[in-house]
Amino acid sequence: MNYRMTIYILGLLLAFEGAFMAVPLLTAAVYGEHEILIFAAVAAACLLIGGIITRFKPKDRTLGARDGFVIVALSWLLLSFFGALPLWLSRAIPKFIDALFEAVSGFTTTGASILHDLDSLPKCMIMWRSFTHWIGGMGVLVFIMAVLPLAGGTNMYLMKAESPGPSVSKLVPRVRKTAIWLYVIYIAMTILEFILLVICRMPLFDAINIAAATAGTGGFGISNAGMMIYNPVCIWIVTVFMLLFAVNFTCYFLLVTGKFKEVINSEVKVFFCIVAAAIAVITFNVRGMFRGTGEALMHVSFTVSSLISSTGFSTADFNLWPTLSKTILVMLMFVGACAGSTGGGIKVQRFIILFKNMHNELRVMTHPREVKKLRIDGQPVDTAVISSVHVYLACYILVYAASLLILSCDHGDLTTNFTAVVATLNNIGPGLGEVGPTSNFDVYSTVSKSVLIFDMLAGRLELFPIILLLSPATWKK
Amino acid sequence: MNYRMTIYILGLLLAFEGAFMAVPLLTAAVYGEHEILIFAAVAAACLLIGGIITRFKPKDRTLGARDGFVIVALSWLLLSFFGALPLWLSRAIPKFIDALFEAVSGFTTTGASILHDLDSLPKCMIMWRSFTHWIGGMGVLVFIMAVLPLAGGTNMYLMKAESPGPSVSKLVPRVRKTAIWLYVIYIAMTILEFILLVICRMPLFDAINIAAATAGTGGFGISNAGMMIYNPVCIWIVTVFMLLFAVNFTCYFLLVTGKFKEVINSEVKVFFCIVAAAIAVITFNVRGMFRGTGEALMHVSFTVSSLISSTGFSTADFNLWPTLSKTILVMLMFVGACAGSTGGGIKVQRFIILFKNMHNELRVMTHPREVKKLRIDGQPVDTAVISSVHVYLACYILVYAASLLILSCDHGDLTTNFTAVVATLNNIGPGLGEVGPTSNFDVYSTVSKSVLIFDMLAGRLELFPIILLLSPATWKK
Repeated sequence: MNYRMTIYILGLLLAFEGAFMAVPLLTAAVYGEHEILIFAAVAAACLLIGGIITRFKPKDRTLGARDGFVIVALSWLLLSFFGALPLWLSRAIPKFIDALFEAVSGFTTTGASILHDLDSLPKCMIMWRSFTHWIGGMGVLVFIMAVLPLAGGTNMYLMKAESPGPSVSKLVPRVRKTAIWLYVIYIAMTILEFILLVICRMPLFDAINIAAATAGTGGFGISNAGMMIYNPVCIWIVTVFMLLFAVNFTCYFLLVTGKFKEVINSEVKVFFCIVAAAIAVITFNVRGMFRGTGEALMHVSFTVSSLISSTGFSTADFNLWPTLSKTILVMLMFVGACAGSTGGGIKVQRFIILFKNMHNELRVMTHPREVKKLRIDGQPVDTAVISSVHVYLACYILVYAASLLILSCDHGDLTTNFTAVVATLNNIGPGLGEVGPTSNFDVYSTVSKSVLIFDMLAGRLELFPIILLLSPATWKK
Repeated sequence: MNYRMTIYILGLLLAFEGAFMAVPLLTAAVYGEHEILIFAAVAAACLLIGGIITRFKPKDRTLGARDGFVIVALSWLLLSFFGALPLWLSRAIPKFIDALFEAVSGFTTTGASILHDLDSLPKCMIMWRSFTHWIGGMGVLVFIMAVLPLAGGTNMYLMKAESPGPSVSKLVPRVRKTAIWLYVIYIAMTILEFILLVICRMPLFDAINIAAATAGTGGFGISNAGMMIYNPVCIWIVTVFMLLFAVNFTCYFLLVTGKFKEVINSEVKVFFCIVAAAIAVITFNVRGMFRGTGEALMHVSFTVSSLISSTGFSTADFNLWPTLSKTILVMLMFVGACAGSTGGGIKVQRFIILFKNMHNELRVMTHPREVKKLRIDGQPVDTAVISSVHVYLACYILVYAASLLILSCDHGDLTTNFTAVVATLNNIGPGLGEVGPTSNFDVYSTVSKSVLIFDMLAGRLELFPIILLLSPATWKK
């Protein structure tokens, strides 16, 4: 372990978090809210501590795989802790565990909330919640890498540990350039959505928040009325952008650099096939519950896009839909977005690898002499990647089962607990039953909330960093 | 494919099934039931067709891996079809799909039923249902191998495809001797349970049926009153034997041959630890629902043993137990019995391999130079076995999701459908909700029943034979 470099990066992170708080600070200034003092104090503390730590630059800046995992896990814990402070200190959320839940839910782009009354919340707090989605979506360390030259080529491990998907595709040979490209695309797409929403007459404040939350595939609401106060065009815009942010950003890079032929890879194809099939079947299934097929199509498209992209916005209470629809929605929750996007879930790419490998191995059982290498889009898939998908699945099952067991000591029923875990572990937001789109996670006890906080972090960082942080073997010399 | 040998073995199987029907035939004779004619006719048909087919002995008796899978899959389809005939022809079950469901549920040792009134069923039909559990438990092809010298050493593939678990352990070098040993242990244990039950004053007919159903870890009831009419001693005897039949039979072989030190392997340890922990937690959780801790302990021990061994008998309606208990029970359903037992489920051994491999691979992530080989009980685990566990899991997820989707077009709720699939795919019997221990599978439509029939067969044969039977690649030259 490179402890000095670890602490240095954590210091950097804290300073950046202080800088990020300029956004809610500005909001408080515009709306004349007295919470400006809270944000100013926390931001100052972050900048001060971060500033002191980063004065001591480590000489040895090389980072190994282990450092990468540990730094990313600790960064996200620190980020969440300090992110929760303004919510707690301002008494917007009186209990610290609830404030932490909300902050973790924000940064991990889950969007699960314990708040009952959003309308009583100051605008700056609403903005901070939405902005945490935006920061967490593409990754805070990726952001730092894009802005600062960190440490030669070794920060690939940081990117690997923070970015979603079974393998990281570097857009360009240098990691820092890749990070810059990712954020340029991210910012451009967020601004595009914001402009479109404003054109379609969404209020400015709402448009900023919704655009930030969509970009990070987060899903925090911004008022008690939810999404249904906006006109259908806005709903459709958000639907499209939820899907766009759930696509591997490599596609946009290829699009920008003119490599049109490579844009539509197999993951994108499978992703959109699943979305189309789900929308078709569910629309048919629920058509009687709406005023016409058009309205049904809008609500179903929104819900499907929201759940598979792990955003978690809702325009309809899908808790009341028929079993077939609910079953499909739960399956979409597990599938999740594409690798290399801002979305959560197990990821389409992992399922492709899992089932292609299954197909290959089944073939070998009956035709032992015809061993074939696994290929996706013509490219051979490294056995280490296949193995990591299987290890991921084993970790997933373990974390899922343990979480479910602890949650079931609480009062909820099977469906509530089962979907509460998938909603947090896959960073979606709402589940079914008592954690459905019209209710929230305040039904759970402090112990259960702690488990769900763990699940949100574990899910956002794709299990390995958080599990390795807790493993004694990681800390051995 | 060796087609001639395939047909020859199917003919043998049919002849054996005809011979097996001597058991219900005898029962009908004892109780003077007119269904004796039905059994006589079907048995005669089986013997006749089987006899004609087996007149043509194939010269080439070698079997490949592919033949093994295909023969086992076809054998079980044929076995179920002819096993359903007496139930259907006697009008005990008027619809053929229901009779097939019942027969498949019997042979696969699931124990899920579509019958509402068991008391109106002739004794010979009750006996046939229980006896199908006994035949299916250890495997019908294993039985044939034990009785007949089939084909040199190549019938290892048949055993591999029919026996449960990620890898087959040959007790002795020769496959036929292994098959004989397995059946000797199986028969001895069944008789032991029968004698103990009779000593504890269970009626003779009941004791035969219950012993056969426990041995196969089946779980068909034999009267509307269920298990609660028997005294607590009988309940405890059945509890213990459900667990014993869920243990790898290699352990008994080692016990008989005096190798006491090797008997308690890691799978057995983990299995009994899970059972003990589950009983302790659930007893604590439901103690208020019974007249005392002793009664609670009895019902919980019975339920836990019944579900983890995939038997499916019930003395209490666990549908009414608290969420924590139900969550643990559902998890036990997934875990299942030990490999190489008569029980179903994913198998403890697979989970051990899955999590040990996960642990190893996570270690490699942080300590890339310390690559260690996976070992269980000191023995290295072949990478092919690890791979087969992962492929099994992928197949399991696929079959599970597809089954759940089709079932959810029916009327049931999420919990009912979710547990109906695990109850059939893991060959347990009862699930929760509408397929709980006090209700049955007649709630489903014909399409859903067909899916569940597929799941029971796929589960009993551990997915590969049935999936490969349906794969076009298997049939290519």
